[in-house]
Amino acid sequence: MIPNWLLKRAALTPNAPALSFQGRTWSYLHLKEEAMERAGKLRSLGLDPGSRIALLGGTSAEMVLLIHGCLLAGIEMVMLNSRLTSEEIEYQLKDSQSEWLVYEEAFREKASQHVCQCIVYEELLQLERVPVQLEQMWEEDRTLTIMYTSGTTGFPKGVRQTAENHTSSALSAVLNSGLHDGDAWLHMMPLFHISGFSILARAVLYGSEIRLFEKFDAAVAAEEITAGRVSGMSVVAVTLERLLTVIEKDKLPVHPKFRTLLAGGGPVPVSYLKRAEQCGLPVLQTYGMTETSSQTATLSAEDALRKPGSAGKPLFFTDIQIDGVKEPFEKGEILIRGPHVTKGYIGKHTSTQTLQNGWLHSGDIGYFDDEGFLFVSDRRSDLIISGGENIYPAEIEAVLVEHPQVVEAGVCAMESDEWGAVPAAFVVTRSAVEEESLREFCQTRLASYKVPKAFHVVDELPRNASNKLLRKTLRESLTLRK
Amino acid sequence: MIPNWLLKRAALTPNAPALSFQGRTWSYLHLKEEAMERAGKLRSLGLDPGSRIALLGGTSAEMVLLIHGCLLAGIEMVMLNSRLTSEEIEYQLKDSQSEWLVYEEAFREKASQHVCQCIVYEELLQLERVPVQLEQMWEEDRTLTIMYTSGTTGFPKGVRQTAENHTSSALSAVLNSGLHDGDAWLHMMPLFHISGFSILARAVLYGSEIRLFEKFDAAVAAEEITAGRVSGMSVVAVTLERLLTVIEKDKLPVHPKFRTLLAGGGPVPVSYLKRAEQCGLPVLQTYGMTETSSQTATLSAEDALRKPGSAGKPLFFTDIQIDGVKEPFEKGEILIRGPHVTKGYIGKHTSTQTLQNGWLHSGDIGYFDDEGFLFVSDRRSDLIISGGENIYPAEIEAVLVEHPQVVEAGVCAMESDEWGAVPAAFVVTRSAVEEESLREFCQTRLASYKVPKAFHVVDELPRNASNKLLRKTLRESLTLRK
Repeated sequence: MIPNWLLKRAALTPNAPALSFQGRTWSYLHLKEEAMERAGKLRSLGLDPGSRIALLGGTSAEMVLLIHGCLLAGIEMVMLNSRLTSEEIEYQLKDSQSEWLVYEEAFREKASQHVCQCIVYEELLQLERVPVQLEQMWEEDRTLTIMYTSGTTGFPKGVRQTAENHTSSALSAVLNSGLHDGDAWLHMMPLFHISGFSILARAVLYGSEIRLFEKFDAAVAAEEITAGRVSGMSVVAVTLERLLTVIEKDKLPVHPKFRTLLAGGGPVPVSYLKRAEQCGLPVLQTYGMTETSSQTATLSAEDALRKPGSAGKPLFFTDIQIDGVKEPFEKGEILIRGPHVTKGYIGKHTSTQTLQNGWLHSGDIGYFDDEGFLFVSDRRSDLIISGGENIYPAEIEAVLVEHPQVVEAGVCAMESDEWGAVPAAFVVTRSAVEEESLREFCQTRLASYKVPKAFHVVDELPRNASNKLLRKTLRESLTLRK
Repeated sequence: MIPNWLLKRAALTPNAPALSFQGRTWSYLHLKEEAMERAGKLRSLGLDPGSRIALLGGTSAEMVLLIHGCLLAGIEMVMLNSRLTSEEIEYQLKDSQSEWLVYEEAFREKASQHVCQCIVYEELLQLERVPVQLEQMWEEDRTLTIMYTSGTTGFPKGVRQTAENHTSSALSAVLNSGLHDGDAWLHMMPLFHISGFSILARAVLYGSEIRLFEKFDAAVAAEEITAGRVSGMSVVAVTLERLLTVIEKDKLPVHPKFRTLLAGGGPVPVSYLKRAEQCGLPVLQTYGMTETSSQTATLSAEDALRKPGSAGKPLFFTDIQIDGVKEPFEKGEILIRGPHVTKGYIGKHTSTQTLQNGWLHSGDIGYFDDEGFLFVSDRRSDLIISGGENIYPAEIEAVLVEHPQVVEAGVCAMESDEWGAVPAAFVVTRSAVEEESLREFCQTRLASYKVPKAFHVVDELPRNASNKLLRKTLRESLTLRK
């Protein structure tokens, strides 16, 4: 049994600061009251504990209140990525069998669909509040969130994240990163990603504060960090670099209160780590995924330069092994187990075997060195990580081959100074086709970050003997084309 | 699943300081190696995972290494109170069906019995080491320790404490007390009590240090605290008072690193709290018992003087309610649930119903105030808490009535400036009997702290209509006798 997070937290430390956004602040008691109000309005839609709704919105205090309202009321949330197209959203609503879609006004166009009932958030707030009977305790297996992650098949998979998943993830993290009075996390991430949601989960469990901003802003982040207003922040390589640039430019001193710059979404270039060390910014590189409810292994700042490229050691309640491998430095598939690992997918992928003998097969290739540090050498299934967003080539390929002129398509990662990587497409066509036509076709069907940044028309795609597409050869050909 | 504590900790932070004692220090790697050696020697006695042994020793690094050896090897430990008599030890060995008794040389006399095989620790260390296959993960329900607590019936009950019990207790504590780099706990408690064992559990989970001393020493404690060598310490009211006296005498400044003086075993007098505040000593009063693997509710230092006599609020993963009571300030039996609560007793008390609808009935009487702070107003079953040791009158009465001259006996608490309380006995005798004879009779059968400090021969004992002994009336008569 796990206590209803916010209910327990507000009982323990009602007056502790919980959230700040655009000059407003909420204590934990205040946060609970506001979330209770939203819970009551959600009930008036007929949403009982165990109901499932989808949320579509930006990063705002309002969305945090809505999320906590759902948690309090026991309503499962499908966390829609706000960059998805209407088509992608429809797919996820259908697959998850969401009863309602609650969206922020800014997303009205994307939210219009015929899969489920929907209501704009502002209108929800006008509804009458119905009394809510709260559950004091949650079953460990209770679903809190569902987040879609693309798969090798091209059909996004809804990952079920339970109370135990999120809670144990936060507990592993606290044993790694510590907990001080006055801790506050600078939140400039999307709320719908596990990286952004896990910040909410940790804060309510720890009783610490979130300083929330609509989006990443390097100058604001630098100001928060140097003024001693925050003790931690989540970044990906690209946002870390921008932050470094601001701090270096004005030689800003990092406040001693700041002790965790959590860097996820792929390895951080060594040059950034060196610059961070110069600035006094403690970077903790981490490895995790939607299926592990955030961090699975994390590298301490002390080891950052001694172990460049490493994702650190498996956290206290997590266990990692390399499939079929016993010796250090031998590569193999990374297998993960622990209470933070999802129990499975929903919808179309319900029957997809998530665990084998209790182990999640990540699809990523890696190894341990002789001191037990994990190195992730190849991301699963040619995954492209672009500014922290995961992009699966198969999903883009599936769209491209629907284009009337396209016969075959292959997508791979292309280096990008700004985003780390972006997708590049190779197509075999029936007849001549304009690049613009391909791009437009993708733009209506894919979130913009998934739209290939380059299109190459080729005579044939590289394939192995069993006709499997060789995306690695595509990547190599990109280098030759430079 | 919970990782094998020390195995995981040594993998995570091998070089972090783990233990210091009498000038020697151990890193976590070193601690693991030493514990592994002991695990191998225990295996050579034929002790496999799930075997059960009893430990009898003092507070020493050697005993900590042995305890960790048992944990690593999966051997259940019956933690014998070293102050028990041979008779009491025999009872616990028999009831727990311990396969072996491992004792320190100093306890040779007490250890001699015919219930199970026994070996002096020094001799165990001479045995050949057998290779040990370690379990990476523990089932949550795995028994780690068994601690005996006296009961109302007079027969001590063996409380089964699982991996989940101890782990969740430590996790609740970290969310309450925080975790800093360089944290170290001053350990001057018996290892066999839950208060002392839980320090070991927390340290290995947190990766923090234990500074261990053979026994409580106010001058040494003051030195450790003022020199900034420790961040926390466990006390009971009587040791707190002695510590205060030393710190006050020399006006010693408390180091800012020191942030938790955890005070268990009954409420701390307000006068002590005031003195602690003057000294800058942050006292966290806590309520817990063997059945809850240490802390269940803890009062923060900030609230100590605002809520004198309170045990604070139920910790994050614990839940407390007052039986049948909904309103603040209404008194009733304190019920406790959560992952830290024992699954049950062993031996003679196996069938004793521990939980009712998931709730542990503590036997203690208390109430919540209007802010959710718990107050424990009457300890269970006339429990006498003497310098942090729990004494059950029924156990002493059962011994007294075995004396050839004693017809009936009643025991109650008598105030003591030094220990808070000590037991006092009332006896109805067949003929005249010397007090000395009664004392000697008790001394051979009861740990010395349980031996009544006063004996009163009376004509009859106060009883209610159904002949139940009225210990409260005995207590009142003590006041009259003053």
